[in-house]
Amino acid sequence: MKEFDAVIQNALVVTSKTQYRANLYISDGKFSAITAPETTFPAARSIDAGGKPVIPGCVDGHSHLMDPGYTDRETFITGTMAAAAGGYTTVTDHHRTIPAVYSVEPLLEKIEYLKDRAVVDFALMGGLSPDNQKELRAMWDAGVTSFKGFTCNLHGVQAMHSGYLLDTFRTIASFGGRALIHAEDNGIIAFEEERMKREGRKDPMAHFEGRSKLAEEIAVQTVLSLAKSTGANVGIAHVSQPHLAEMIRRVQEEGYPVFSETEPHYLSMNTEDLKRLGPWLRFTPPVNTPEMQEKLWELFDKGIFDTMGTDHCPIVKADKEKGLEDVLEAPCGIPGLETALKLMLTGVNSGKTTLNRLVACMCENPAKIYGLYPKKGAIQVGTDADLVILDMEKEETLCNEKVISKCGWTPYAGMTVKGGPDTVMVRGQIVFAEGKVIGKPGWGAFVPRQS
Amino acid sequence: MKEFDAVIQNALVVTSKTQYRANLYISDGKFSAITAPETTFPAARSIDAGGKPVIPGCVDGHSHLMDPGYTDRETFITGTMAAAAGGYTTVTDHHRTIPAVYSVEPLLEKIEYLKDRAVVDFALMGGLSPDNQKELRAMWDAGVTSFKGFTCNLHGVQAMHSGYLLDTFRTIASFGGRALIHAEDNGIIAFEEERMKREGRKDPMAHFEGRSKLAEEIAVQTVLSLAKSTGANVGIAHVSQPHLAEMIRRVQEEGYPVFSETEPHYLSMNTEDLKRLGPWLRFTPPVNTPEMQEKLWELFDKGIFDTMGTDHCPIVKADKEKGLEDVLEAPCGIPGLETALKLMLTGVNSGKTTLNRLVACMCENPAKIYGLYPKKGAIQVGTDADLVILDMEKEETLCNEKVISKCGWTPYAGMTVKGGPDTVMVRGQIVFAEGKVIGKPGWGAFVPRQS
Amino acid sequence: MKEFDAVIQNALVVTSKTQYRANLYISDGKFSAITAPETTFPAARSIDAGGKPVIPGCVDGHSHLMDPGYTDRETFITGTMAAAAGGYTTVTDHHRTIPAVYSVEPLLEKIEYLKDRAVVDFALMGGLSPDNQKELRAMWDAGVTSFKGFTCNLHGVQAMHSGYLLDTFRTIASFGGRALIHAEDNGIIAFEEERMKREGRKDPMAHFEGRSKLAEEIAVQTVLSLAKSTGANVGIAHVSQPHLAEMIRRVQEEGYPVFSETEPHYLSMNTEDLKRLGPWLRFTPPVNTPEMQEKLWELFDKGIFDTMGTDHCPIVKADKEKGLEDVLEAPCGIPGLETALKLMLTGVNSGKTTLNRLVACMCENPAKIYGLYPKKGAIQVGTDADLVILDMEKEETLCNEKVISKCGWTPYAGMTVKGGPDTVMVRGQIVFAEGKVIGKPGWGAFVPRQS
Amino acid sequence: MKEFDAVIQNALVVTSKTQYRANLYISDGKFSAITAPETTFPAARSIDAGGKPVIPGCVDGHSHLMDPGYTDRETFITGTMAAAAGGYTTVTDHHRTIPAVYSVEPLLEKIEYLKDRAVVDFALMGGLSPDNQKELRAMWDAGVTSFKGFTCNLHGVQAMHSGYLLDTFRTIASFGGRALIHAEDNGIIAFEEERMKREGRKDPMAHFEGRSKLAEEIAVQTVLSLAKSTGANVGIAHVSQPHLAEMIRRVQEEGYPVFSETEPHYLSMNTEDLKRLGPWLRFTPPVNTPEMQEKLWELFDKGIFDTMGTDHCPIVKADKEKGLEDVLEAPCGIPGLETALKLMLTGVNSGKTTLNRLVACMCENPAKIYGLYPKKGAIQVGTDADLVILDMEKEETLCNEKVISKCGWTPYAGMTVKGGPDTVMVRGQIVFAEGKVIGKPGWGAFVPRQS
Repeated sequence: MKEFDAVIQNALVVTSKTQYRANLYISDGKFSAITAPETTFPAARSIDAGGKPVIPGCVDGHSHLMDPGYTDRETFITGTMAAAAGGYTTVTDHHRTIPAVYSVEPLLEKIEYLKDRAVVDFALMGGLSPDNQKELRAMWDAGVTSFKGFTCNLHGVQAMHSGYLLDTFRTIASFGGRALIHAEDNGIIAFEEERMKREGRKDPMAHFEGRSKLAEEIAVQTVLSLAKSTGANVGIAHVSQPHLAEMIRRVQEEGYPVFSETEPHYLSMNTEDLKRLGPWLRFTPPVNTPEMQEKLWELFDKGIFDTMGTDHCPIVKADKEKGLEDVLEAPCGIPGLETALKLMLTGVNSGKTTLNRLVACMCENPAKIYGLYPKKGAIQVGTDADLVILDMEKEETLCNEKVISKCGWTPYAGMTVKGGPDTVMVRGQIVFAEGKVIGKPGWGAFVPRQS
Repeated sequence: MKEFDAVIQNALVVTSKTQYRANLYISDGKFSAITAPETTFPAARSIDAGGKPVIPGCVDGHSHLMDPGYTDRETFITGTMAAAAGGYTTVTDHHRTIPAVYSVEPLLEKIEYLKDRAVVDFALMGGLSPDNQKELRAMWDAGVTSFKGFTCNLHGVQAMHSGYLLDTFRTIASFGGRALIHAEDNGIIAFEEERMKREGRKDPMAHFEGRSKLAEEIAVQTVLSLAKSTGANVGIAHVSQPHLAEMIRRVQEEGYPVFSETEPHYLSMNTEDLKRLGPWLRFTPPVNTPEMQEKLWELFDKGIFDTMGTDHCPIVKADKEKGLEDVLEAPCGIPGLETALKLMLTGVNSGKTTLNRLVACMCENPAKIYGLYPKKGAIQVGTDADLVILDMEKEETLCNEKVISKCGWTPYAGMTVKGGPDTVMVRGQIVFAEGKVIGKPGWGAFVPRQS
Repeated sequence: MKEFDAVIQNALVVTSKTQYRANLYISDGKFSAITAPETTFPAARSIDAGGKPVIPGCVDGHSHLMDPGYTDRETFITGTMAAAAGGYTTVTDHHRTIPAVYSVEPLLEKIEYLKDRAVVDFALMGGLSPDNQKELRAMWDAGVTSFKGFTCNLHGVQAMHSGYLLDTFRTIASFGGRALIHAEDNGIIAFEEERMKREGRKDPMAHFEGRSKLAEEIAVQTVLSLAKSTGANVGIAHVSQPHLAEMIRRVQEEGYPVFSETEPHYLSMNTEDLKRLGPWLRFTPPVNTPEMQEKLWELFDKGIFDTMGTDHCPIVKADKEKGLEDVLEAPCGIPGLETALKLMLTGVNSGKTTLNRLVACMCENPAKIYGLYPKKGAIQVGTDADLVILDMEKEETLCNEKVISKCGWTPYAGMTVKGGPDTVMVRGQIVFAEGKVIGKPGWGAFVPRQS
Repeated sequence: MKEFDAVIQNALVVTSKTQYRANLYISDGKFSAITAPETTFPAARSIDAGGKPVIPGCVDGHSHLMDPGYTDRETFITGTMAAAAGGYTTVTDHHRTIPAVYSVEPLLEKIEYLKDRAVVDFALMGGLSPDNQKELRAMWDAGVTSFKGFTCNLHGVQAMHSGYLLDTFRTIASFGGRALIHAEDNGIIAFEEERMKREGRKDPMAHFEGRSKLAEEIAVQTVLSLAKSTGANVGIAHVSQPHLAEMIRRVQEEGYPVFSETEPHYLSMNTEDLKRLGPWLRFTPPVNTPEMQEKLWELFDKGIFDTMGTDHCPIVKADKEKGLEDVLEAPCGIPGLETALKLMLTGVNSGKTTLNRLVACMCENPAKIYGLYPKKGAIQVGTDADLVILDMEKEETLCNEKVISKCGWTPYAGMTVKGGPDTVMVRGQIVFAEGKVIGKPGWGAFVPRQS
């Protein structure tokens, strides 16, 4: 028996189903022994969790780190530092970098390029375009976790109309792949945004009305019909309406492999915040009304949502500021990696949900859904020693000054949260502790989808 | 007391709810007295129904008579003669004539033009286009019964994408108008038809696969969402799938003014017939499988469908023949006015449904839904004396040679039907009797929607 | 052509679907001609309706006239006079007279006995008991319209537990009979009423809590399961909860011949009235909350209820007064024949529903459901000339002094209604006019169920 | 660091969500360390699992061990030996022993009495009777896991009619207790069994028809209505129909704490087996048709059932034999503890479900639902070292001769199963290995419900 590399002593391990006290022994970057608190062994390094909750490192199935290509907004270094600070030990980067990842060559280049730039581990998405069906299989075999598609034009990505989606879903189903779809009906969005402009609307609610909830409903119905018709594994990204989450669940119960993702901003913010924050809260689908926000919390706590992504999408401050006069002039997107866990822990502290549900949606389920489990998303012997020691008592008023993401702002500035990461570890190495990111670029590694 | 113009003696009057024996007295083109069989009065002309069922003249809410503009396919004269022979005393012409009816001026011109060309009464549809919202109210006030829109490109009509439909439904809801929507998703249709071509498919089932049932499902869901969102009165034309009829019914029960139309060909034909008939049975959405056909009859009999249209759409024989080699080369459409009632009576005779349900869907409901009731669709004192004396025993093998429609063919050639119109009367004048159309062009009049 | 016996001139005939102006000619107690207003014939007697609405005489499928046997509460003479004054031209008496009608002999005796005592026409129910399955067919053949059964002990009638109901429904289904079930779970009722007593509750709401809404829910579910299992035609009497009406509708849509009855008191009164009126509003199931009352109106107007009965059940004043101190001491039941139509017309006048829906639920549907149509429930040539000329403008404050029912009181005393019967005719004879019952006992006849 | 008591080396640990390779170290009857396979420590005893699946010991929430009182059928010694052989490390005994457990005194006596008679650990149920509401809280505080009630008379237990259940559920909800209900409508059962007798039916299907599926449907609906009305935590025992499992799931999704239990015999047997086996397969609710059996497997695999009990209920052979001539003469009940896991593993081996789902329903969920988790039902440091090493390859033809249960027979005699327990451990002690029960009476301990 050799000495362990490290031990987290006196942890309150939280899983999606239970919690228990244990010591977590780590060797070679993996959990190599989990013992009852009173069973101890020598370890080179010992960290006393002091009975605090320890959860698997959070896994984000959906983030925009913008690098290579949009490094004015984020670099992989700043983005994964933000992730580390936020308790995310694995992020999944969107295909929309330069070049965009629509085939296997740029994918392999991107993996190579990011090798030295990641502070936490990362997975990658491929993209869906109207004409890249033939490229999908190679990307899948190279390890992407999902293919992202849009039913509407956004961020310069071309909408996939229903025929292309049908074709694509058939292709994906043929090799057991997986799609994650941004579902807003393009016709409604285009018309309603244009109507807002025509009517001279520039106020924050022009965003809410322009990115109509009806557009999301229509697109979700369509995507579900396509998923049922093809049998493809399809997720609906950032579901913002309770009845749509329930609709997805019913399709699951019929036996189809579909899933729903929500995001912390739908639970933390509502139209009242949008009125206050304008462009700083412009993302799409937009926040919902306060009543619907409450209902979303209920559904989250009941387990109706399968997973939570951040959709971290940093926008340069100056670009957002263009929306101060006319909300529609601001690009859509907000940063989220640094705040997601804190917001959700605040919800736990206020009784809206439990740590178990949080672990389900932010750690276990995304790892499972995206084929990274149990390497990621589990505190289990043999899996990567990715973890977050939580400080459930820490109160903090969020502010722009402390933002690590290159964008330098957060829509939650001024909000007081309770609960946050105390210590974050990626494969046995501490990347965040005592309020500081101490992980280094290059430590984070590419994690291909497990077969 | 003056002498009546005419009497139908010894009728078995059938309504959607009941049947009873009566004499029907007519003056000035209207029913002026309905009496018990033994109560008789002098009348200038007497027709003995001999106890046969007498139903209100059938009302078609959806037909293509092609005139002015496409008179190689049908003229209003031949089309309304076909209607008379088929038991239809009111037809509703589609807006797609030349010029197409997208505003009030061509509508008024069309009314004027058709004045001398109609054998039976007629109503008119307006059309929906992406840019004619401002024209709708004037057409409505001029008496159109509905506005027809397409979610897919067809017959050269431009698809209304969801944004335009939203805008249009809002406009229609603002003045209490009504839309009738051809619901097939344009993206799916375009892709699947192209796929059929790419795969070299030319067989009849290429039509079934190309005009995918999935396309109808997606579009119906979308149109229902739009109808719910706007509160507009919206009908779904030619519903070909049982679960979609049930979906529409559920939306009705939530309190929304939506309705469903089916057509006789979905009840009379199925994919086996399509394989046999190829281009002659090419219309869209296509027929369904034999199993679904049976289910459609069940739903029809239960009252799940609100109305039945013919979608009479004559195509020149030579054009259909292009599809013999490649079904996709044939234009979509079949004639229906002459055969609809016969097909449905055959269903009654075989026990699939009742005369009451037939009267509901082919007479009363279309008249009510389209604002023509009780002038049309009712045997009631004060209403137009439009009626059909039925011969429930008459067996007939349908054939192209007897077709009155200018197209000169019917997809039902060779099929034996049982039951058909014996005598047909429009406003007290016989237009069809003893197997012959005796009505004259010019007798038929424009019927504006009643307020 | 002979002279008609009578004519109602200038009527606005209202059916469940439409309304139209007509003259109604009557001979030999039947409608013998219906003419356009301007078409007139000689008639021995002429009544000018002056354009007022004329509806078919109301048909009550469910009333307790108590004679023979409980003539301290009502006699058939007073009861049918009350019916005449209330616009009911056909009542259906409950089997619970003395002797109770559990077999064909007392049925035939009762028909004979009532011959000289009816002012309006009447039909009869048979009763269900745990041991009279063998008697049902003979009663059915003798013309009863339904068999009434109770899932709970009430009025001294023995509850039919589920096994007996199953057996009975099978028997009824075997000959195409029909049941009408009072559905409240006996176990819940017995327990909750006992609990009220144990807790010393005597206040009006002890009735509401004791006859728990849960009891109705449980029993309705059970009866529907039994109806589905056996295929029997089964109605649920006096449905007092919206979700139960919707549940019954869904079972109908699956194709089972079940139906729902509601009653005017659920639409006109609520728990606030119960608090005020105590024993005078004690009937069961009890009224619902104000919110549910509104929802019941919505469902009524949407057509979710099939029929409306009165459940006219007069109780001697002194017996009700026992409940002033302790509501549970008052027998259940209220008179309703005189007030039902007025209450519903008040609803029409206030916009809660339409005359068409009223005619559907109070005239056509009960006649149809109980096999009396079109003899009853229709204004149609050849059918009984039973009608009500309505005065939609008449306002009246209800009071005990004017009550015709032998019980001498009404729970609606003090309430102002708008709309009521002006003239009521049974088979061509006026039985009520100018505020007075002028029909004579013996004019009313037994109406057997039509085959 | 002290030496461990034991280690299971090279286990493939299976949870409801995942599986992973590990060594399981045990000290003082608990898992004290779980390590990666290559991380090893000294242990007094080492068992090599050889890569075989290791699951938590099965937890039966519902069994009849008959002792004290019915020891002709089973003793706690034979019953818990059967459990050990079947992979059950915790059983929950029914209250129906002598004296029956309707209050805390006999409960405490029973715990004391069983102390020396248990080979595996045991929990206990309390019973519900019409008049023991006041006793429930004390039993709950003494650690029962649920209260068992019957809606029908069975085994001499008095049916709880709906009123008593309402009262009881209110009481249970008041202190956060839990009920497990045998749901068959008493009226239907009584009537249908009597009908079978009246009709001279003695064949096996007389059991199926007599214990009508309708009875289960009615009772489940009623119990769910009561659960919703009171908010009580209520399980439905031995759900035998797919649509009822789905109904329970929908009530869960509305947010009510209800749950469903199924049993291995519904998945393993059907009406064809009943015809063959007659009284030996008489239990209630009876097996279902082959079609429904398949559907039950689907629902099991989808996770629609929450838990699986055995309802182990041994009957003396001679008593069952009475049913050979007349199935209704045989008492209801079959033994199940020895065969449940084998039957389910056979299902896993044939691809009908997964080991994960098996662990969910047979280990984790019952432990969680009944308040024994994570002490029971989990392989986790700090929890009881209860486990089963599975041999997935072992084929065995079941036979009466090997039955350990005192009853000495199994309905599965002659059936070949694949997969079974290799080694079974209770709190670190082997109780079954090499095909033999080696646990001793007295090792098993009472496990009170955890708070």
